[in-house]
Amino acid sequence: MKGKKKKAVVLLSGGLDSATTLYAAKDKGYHVTALIFDYGQRHKKELRHAVRIAHAAKCAFVVMKISLPWKGSALLDRRQKIPTRRLLKTISKMIPSTYVPSRNIIFLSFASSLAEAIGARAIFIGANALDYSGYPDCRPEFLSAFQKVLLEGTKAALTGQAIRIYAPLIKKTKEQIITLGIRLKVPYGLTWSCYQGKRKPCGSCDSCLLRAKGFDALGLKDPALQ
Amino acid sequence: MKGKKKKAVVLLSGGLDSATTLYAAKDKGYHVTALIFDYGQRHKKELRHAVRIAHAAKCAFVVMKISLPWKGSALLDRRQKIPTRRLLKTISKMIPSTYVPSRNIIFLSFASSLAEAIGARAIFIGANALDYSGYPDCRPEFLSAFQKVLLEGTKAALTGQAIRIYAPLIKKTKEQIITLGIRLKVPYGLTWSCYQGKRKPCGSCDSCLLRAKGFDALGLKDPALQ
Repeated sequence: MKGKKKKAVVLLSGGLDSATTLYAAKDKGYHVTALIFDYGQRHKKELRHAVRIAHAAKCAFVVMKISLPWKGSALLDRRQKIPTRRLLKTISKMIPSTYVPSRNIIFLSFASSLAEAIGARAIFIGANALDYSGYPDCRPEFLSAFQKVLLEGTKAALTGQAIRIYAPLIKKTKEQIITLGIRLKVPYGLTWSCYQGKRKPCGSCDSCLLRAKGFDALGLKDPALQ
Repeated sequence: MKGKKKKAVVLLSGGLDSATTLYAAKDKGYHVTALIFDYGQRHKKELRHAVRIAHAAKCAFVVMKISLPWKGSALLDRRQKIPTRRLLKTISKMIPSTYVPSRNIIFLSFASSLAEAIGARAIFIGANALDYSGYPDCRPEFLSAFQKVLLEGTKAALTGQAIRIYAPLIKKTKEQIITLGIRLKVPYGLTWSCYQGKRKPCGSCDSCLLRAKGFDALGLKDPALQ
């Protein structure tokens, strides 16, 4: 039944988690449209990597540009310092300065709009509530709440064509995510997790630390560092 | 306690409902920041009126530009015809072609981000579920669902600084909305409700019909038509 595949929108950032999520959606038989955001990140590296991953996965993609006229996050504001070498233990106990106000709420709202426009019934997001940075909008409680919004606030509310949110990584450790990704042949060499936009990953921001922890646990070398 | 007023974000479109909502928020003692969207409406008239209303109300405002790379609505696509003279009775039974996929989800998500960035604890929206066009994202069930998203997906989830959604018009008829607005001295002459962007309101789109119904019921002349 070529051409009749069920459609999904996948939020793609260029990082390890969302790349794995994209390949997981493809593995489930979805015809994927990746939704990539250019939202004023302090570096465009993430964006370029997202596009490369979409190409590698041979999926359609849309780059959505958003210029937030307000700041409030170290990820948007070059004047703020990215925190480094925070103790991983303390990560989930406070909201770090890299938190972008309502980022996943905004991303999911556009995913909802795109899904409605193209007739997709699934949205995949690489949110993870285990090895994560303590952002409130990565937690399962948030995703359940947003699921309700999709049921009540889209055409689905009147037609019964529900759009479902899937977060296949939500309860996985970084190690389990990478194990899944390797099985799905995710091109991890193309992913970029570092909050800094230098030539090589800094190795000391939360994102680099979490990623390294995953590869280390598996006794593997991170292909992005080779 | 000047300068210590509680802050609110008000979604402002240039229409009668959101203008009334803005004045209702001011009346409740809020220091208002209006959030106006330039989202590729087929005409910019609405936008100009929104700015005029914000000026008249002497409140801060932000214009947020969004270019949806997808269409799917007669309000965004100039090639689609705006439906006219639909029987008001049938309006709420189907979703009209003027529905913009997930519009209020997107608008509220930015309102949430702005509220987090400026430390506002209230978001006002002029949604109305009585004299409305049948959009799923104007119903109370949708707003309750989004309220849950704000509780779970923002900093509030961890700090208890909840952002609340207020929809003061949700159960009001157009007649009751206008009665309220007249008491609050809303400059209705500055509002623009028509889906068309001509020099004068068309008088035949859903939005014009609903508005006329309200003024007619009160035996008043619409100041925007004078």
